[in-house]
Amino acid sequence: MAQRDIHLLLTGDELMSGDTVDSNSAMIAQALSAMGQTVAHKVTLGDDRPRLVAALKQASQDARVLIMNGGLGPTQDDLTAELVAAAAGVALVLNAEAERHVREWCAARSIEPNEANLKQAWLPEGAEIIHNPRGSAVGFAIEVAGTLVLTTPGVPGELKAMLPEVCGRALAVTGGEATQRVRFQTFGIGESTAQARIDERSHDWPEDVVLGFRAGMPQLEIKLTAPANSPELGRCREILAGVLGDHILGEDDITLAAALQQVLRDQGKKMVSAESCTGGLIAAMMTAEPGSSAVFEAGFVTYANHIKHSVLGVDEATLETEGAVSEPVVRQMLAGALARSGADIGVAVSGVAGPDGGTPDKPLGTVWLAWGTETEMHTHKTVLPTDRAMFQKLVAAAGLDLIRRQLLGLPKLPHYFSRRAI
Amino acid sequence: MAQRDIHLLLTGDELMSGDTVDSNSAMIAQALSAMGQTVAHKVTLGDDRPRLVAALKQASQDARVLIMNGGLGPTQDDLTAELVAAAAGVALVLNAEAERHVREWCAARSIEPNEANLKQAWLPEGAEIIHNPRGSAVGFAIEVAGTLVLTTPGVPGELKAMLPEVCGRALAVTGGEATQRVRFQTFGIGESTAQARIDERSHDWPEDVVLGFRAGMPQLEIKLTAPANSPELGRCREILAGVLGDHILGEDDITLAAALQQVLRDQGKKMVSAESCTGGLIAAMMTAEPGSSAVFEAGFVTYANHIKHSVLGVDEATLETEGAVSEPVVRQMLAGALARSGADIGVAVSGVAGPDGGTPDKPLGTVWLAWGTETEMHTHKTVLPTDRAMFQKLVAAAGLDLIRRQLLGLPKLPHYFSRRAI
Repeated sequence: MAQRDIHLLLTGDELMSGDTVDSNSAMIAQALSAMGQTVAHKVTLGDDRPRLVAALKQASQDARVLIMNGGLGPTQDDLTAELVAAAAGVALVLNAEAERHVREWCAARSIEPNEANLKQAWLPEGAEIIHNPRGSAVGFAIEVAGTLVLTTPGVPGELKAMLPEVCGRALAVTGGEATQRVRFQTFGIGESTAQARIDERSHDWPEDVVLGFRAGMPQLEIKLTAPANSPELGRCREILAGVLGDHILGEDDITLAAALQQVLRDQGKKMVSAESCTGGLIAAMMTAEPGSSAVFEAGFVTYANHIKHSVLGVDEATLETEGAVSEPVVRQMLAGALARSGADIGVAVSGVAGPDGGTPDKPLGTVWLAWGTETEMHTHKTVLPTDRAMFQKLVAAAGLDLIRRQLLGLPKLPHYFSRRAI
Repeated sequence: MAQRDIHLLLTGDELMSGDTVDSNSAMIAQALSAMGQTVAHKVTLGDDRPRLVAALKQASQDARVLIMNGGLGPTQDDLTAELVAAAAGVALVLNAEAERHVREWCAARSIEPNEANLKQAWLPEGAEIIHNPRGSAVGFAIEVAGTLVLTTPGVPGELKAMLPEVCGRALAVTGGEATQRVRFQTFGIGESTAQARIDERSHDWPEDVVLGFRAGMPQLEIKLTAPANSPELGRCREILAGVLGDHILGEDDITLAAALQQVLRDQGKKMVSAESCTGGLIAAMMTAEPGSSAVFEAGFVTYANHIKHSVLGVDEATLETEGAVSEPVVRQMLAGALARSGADIGVAVSGVAGPDGGTPDKPLGTVWLAWGTETEMHTHKTVLPTDRAMFQKLVAAAGLDLIRRQLLGLPKLPHYFSRRAI
């Protein structure tokens, strides 16, 4: 293990029982990442003395910096200060600066510090405090056998406020080489297809540019990481952009809905949705984005057949003869939604989300989509045999993507319809 | 370390960079906990060969069972099968059962399996597969130096579907003591309020019945765990049910929408939604549940003001003088939605979701709700000063809960409106 490694050690019974989802370690990693640092190794343990002692010992052999999170509170199961003192071979002493912080914190709340409050001021001898502007427990920094141990509280708001100092202290000893990153958000291309396309170009792919994937349904994030001084990132970015083509929604954290919102805004257009099987998810995805009122006009969730007729004007005879999951019905749903809303462009979907309702003719996962404008309307049928939640997500996302594609003048039928899977 | 320890090893660069918050380990811990098992030790690493090798070696010394999560995918950085094979001292072979699974999975999607797909069928020699009903990558089970290694995919939906088998295999070797559990799903009561109400009854609370909370926005799960032979669980369950009262939606994994669907179904009634600030989320929450077509008639996402008028018949002068976020507007939205859909009961919401749009008169987070029937309609205003996503979730959930309460004849204004926070 490298001499500049940063390790994390998270403690707390609630992290082991599954009652709490740990978001602190992601917060720490992101703060470090912004400074070009990465976390090499992360261990999570309950409030368990022998295991914590063993983990501290291991980290002091392997890591240059160990960031501990949790266990700084006032209760008996908060063991961090005691165990770090033991590992450093020093006593636990009343730290004057920490005591002043506790007393000031209590005074600001008009309470008399009790024993539990003051326990938080007993720190390993020689430790420097890490200021906590949000809570009564300070963190501290101390060297243990050549490893800088930095302790932080488990309360997310307190941790967040302390991270600049924590990361600064870590960076001061790791030195740290900055990295550069490119993150593309994509839709409609799977990890294996993307990898296969990139592999075709891999004969001249530089070793110091690392490719990574993050499957965030319905999007796939594809990213490149390289040392700050690598001259190759720009070239790799061009290769990747070429390979991913019109699947790219944008960079960094952009969502499919935000990408569509941007295109609509750029073109001064407004959209409408008419949903059956997705039940409002298309509208909800669009309106989850701030600023959606400028581009999203209305959504019609016409779940029952008689509503498709009465609200959107779908012909009753067509519903009877063709069924709700059919090309003429989605076409009429879209036409009705465009006419009733006055929107420029829209999407309509009707399908069999399941788990019941499939027939030999229209099996589970069958969906008809219609998208476009009054004068340029397209339709397509596909089958997505997956569970209800995934089916709804994929269909809603495809609906948004199809509008995006039409507005941008991209090929009418995307790659994912040719493979049938989205 | 005990001989029956269960360890977790999570892999993936996205877990180290802070790009992904790990919810998988909580899911695994909860599933184990339901079987009376706990996770003793958890390590998280990037897609990093030497570190993974070291962690596997350490776990095979310390743990009876090692559950690995991630790294089963089709790309180069998916190292799990290869490294476990090396640790077990066996070759990586094309597993016939896994290959059949991949081919069937591809066939169901009408795609030809490529090399990347088939990579997922190369498993350590002698491994037993763990069936994956949701994805192309199976998990597998193999003994490594006396430690049972169980591998699972990183995609949460796939992991979830595989957990019963994974936990069953773990339990078969750890033995483990059975526990009994009661889990209530609640809405509209906070953890601290629930805890305070329970504390008032704590003088005769038995020691072997453990109370736990799990905040799952918008619901709060409140659970009791006791040894299988404890006679006290029934009594504690009655106390808890009394304390939580009409905040209880049901038991086990029931959602707010499923609870409402059940009440509507029992009473043979159908609902409609008219949404502005929640943008379709009420409809989407209802229709996410299988069977919603029997009870959900239609949803109107009247985002723009002129749509509130043209689609729902809201008076233009009222919109002008009172503004879209006002009592008469939500009342007219609901009346219009009921009339146009023919539904028995419904909810309408209009509010300031932010981040922009607040005024001194109607600050950020202001929302008007109307709910009920043509003859019994109620309205209420509240202020939820939180971020957009949380605001939308809380308002949509309250909308569903208010219909549930009215149908059940519960007090018109729930506890959470008296506190203003939901």
